Amino acid sequence: MADRQALLDRQAPLFGRVAIVGIGLIGSSLARAIARAGLSAEIAIADRDPAALARAEALGLGTSYHATAAEAAKGADLVIACVPVGACGPVAAEIAPVLSATAIVSDVGSVKGSVIRQMAPLLPNPRRLVPAHPVAGTEQSGPDAGFAELFDNRWCILTPPEDADADAVEKVVALWRACGANVEVMASDHHDLVLAITSHLPHLIAYNIVGTAADLEEVTQSEVIKFSAGGFRDFTRIAASDPTMWRDVFLHNKDAVLEVLGRFSEDLAALQRAIRWGDGEQLFDVFTRTRAIRRGIIAAGQDTASPDFGRRPAVEAGPAAVEPPVKAAKAS
Amino acid sequence: MADRQALLDRQAPLFGRVAIVGIGLIGSSLARAIARAGLSAEIAIADRDPAALARAEALGLGTSYHATAAEAAKGADLVIACVPVGACGPVAAEIAPVLSATAIVSDVGSVKGSVIRQMAPLLPNPRRLVPAHPVAGTEQSGPDAGFAELFDNRWCILTPPEDADADAVEKVVALWRACGANVEVMASDHHDLVLAITSHLPHLIAYNIVGTAADLEEVTQSEVIKFSAGGFRDFTRIAASDPTMWRDVFLHNKDAVLEVLGRFSEDLAALQRAIRWGDGEQLFDVFTRTRAIRRGIIAAGQDTASPDFGRRPAVEAGPAAVEPPVKAAKAS
Repeated sequence: MADRQALLDRQAPLFGRVAIVGIGLIGSSLARAIARAGLSAEIAIADRDPAALARAEALGLGTSYHATAAEAAKGADLVIACVPVGACGPVAAEIAPVLSATAIVSDVGSVKGSVIRQMAPLLPNPRRLVPAHPVAGTEQSGPDAGFAELFDNRWCILTPPEDADADAVEKVVALWRACGANVEVMASDHHDLVLAITSHLPHLIAYNIVGTAADLEEVTQSEVIKFSAGGFRDFTRIAASDPTMWRDVFLHNKDAVLEVLGRFSEDLAALQRAIRWGDGEQLFDVFTRTRAIRRGIIAAGQDTASPDFGRRPAVEAGPAAVEPPVKAAKAS
Repeated sequence: MADRQALLDRQAPLFGRVAIVGIGLIGSSLARAIARAGLSAEIAIADRDPAALARAEALGLGTSYHATAAEAAKGADLVIACVPVGACGPVAAEIAPVLSATAIVSDVGSVKGSVIRQMAPLLPNPRRLVPAHPVAGTEQSGPDAGFAELFDNRWCILTPPEDADADAVEKVVALWRACGANVEVMASDHHDLVLAITSHLPHLIAYNIVGTAADLEEVTQSEVIKFSAGGFRDFTRIAASDPTMWRDVFLHNKDAVLEVLGRFSEDLAALQRAIRWGDGEQLFDVFTRTRAIRRGIIAAGQDTASPDFGRRPAVEAGPAAVEPPVKAAKAS
């Protein structure tokens, strides 16, 4: 955290004006983290949803509030599009006419190749486009869901094109480090493949299994809910994520998602065959080798080692701790 | 919790001697919960693994410790097999010669039809077999992993055969309620289908995606670990569960698992097609309808509403909060 402390000790903030376009979970967390670290004299917030903008103002997330991206971007040193991936092109088109020659443009999208293809051609100075992806989030949405600590000890991946201005990249690196994140730089196509397996495919599968469960005629929704502690409930958390954001992720990272999805389905077919033919040895082998990755994730500080994520059933019980009647047998 | 309080106020405990065969996560949690509620004068613990048995004794989980199930079952009013599903038949064979005429036999397995088929023919009095499945657990294993609160406000499903002795069923119901669980009774084949979707399929998919990720040549294991916060890490928790237990679940619930797996794969193929053809509307629809089930799970007290399961990145950071170097671009 040496960089962050150094930044906190500076006399002048890193930016005179940062514009945040879109004040959802990520945008509002970023506004809070920028304010926490004192990184910008002004934080201009834009959102086309008047209710979200009003909430941002009520929460005091910025120094000014704007109905359009262009108004917020006027005079900004850095404009960060915190919108679904599919909206990045329209944001670029809107801010392009008002951008200063030295303004840096960035984003927070979960897909990076598409963001570059959408935004770069529309910007007056594409060499000052520094796309970013903070690998952090929760299943909740909106300005109230954000918090300044969201990025602490999480990774933020930057994917500047090869000819990006070095000083622009450095400033975005400094911003994310000061917001608590670790920064890694990689090529956009590699980012899109890595995230396809670590984020996009898990979300697709989680959405899918919740849908499959909802359609099972022989099992009621009430049963799915009651007995979800057997594993299903962890998937429902992910499947509660913002539908617009995720629709855009899959539309804009099609090739990489289809590639890893094809591999996943092949592997699943092999497991299915092992179950059908009673091949316990193969099942045991697959179930054993996956433990090493879990240990690595905990050792790297990317998850808690507390069993069951540290859920404490007794504390959570609340009003549900009512004795239900014992139902009659032969439910099926 | 009226039943539990009533039990605590009783003069005599519910059982004179309970035998717990297998002292892993569930067995040791059950021993602790039985002791917490004062449900049995004696708790006889058996495990064929000398190390596990020694740990159980060191932790003081029972009143006596035995290398064989038969020794523990001698004179028991209730014998509970807390072993992988595939080991239930052998346990039944071993205890059958020493069981008293009134002894109740139960288990805690995640599959119920197979347990009945394995155990009932071997027992002297199959009408006193009352299979049980507490839908609770963590990804950890062994006697140290257990805790008395594991079953609090969780469901325990009983699947007694239709001709089961009513007094035996009542006693097992009373046991689980006194251990903090809510009890539901259903037919074993229905149980096996419900759990196939709420527990077995989620585990299979989690194991599978972790394996798929490990095999991606273009993405390093270190990258998978670093960027797992995008969704993948939740799957790795489930995929860290005990491999022997889960191998047995899939071998013994083959038909129901293959049925729900077939449906899951069909649904996934439809999503794959929507991605390939850019059908954003279909994706959005699927991603929206899944939110209702999540809300139901939280309302029923089966999960916490805290975003991200209440993980607090700053607190977890620990030694990993070291500033890493910014890597060079073109990682791929």
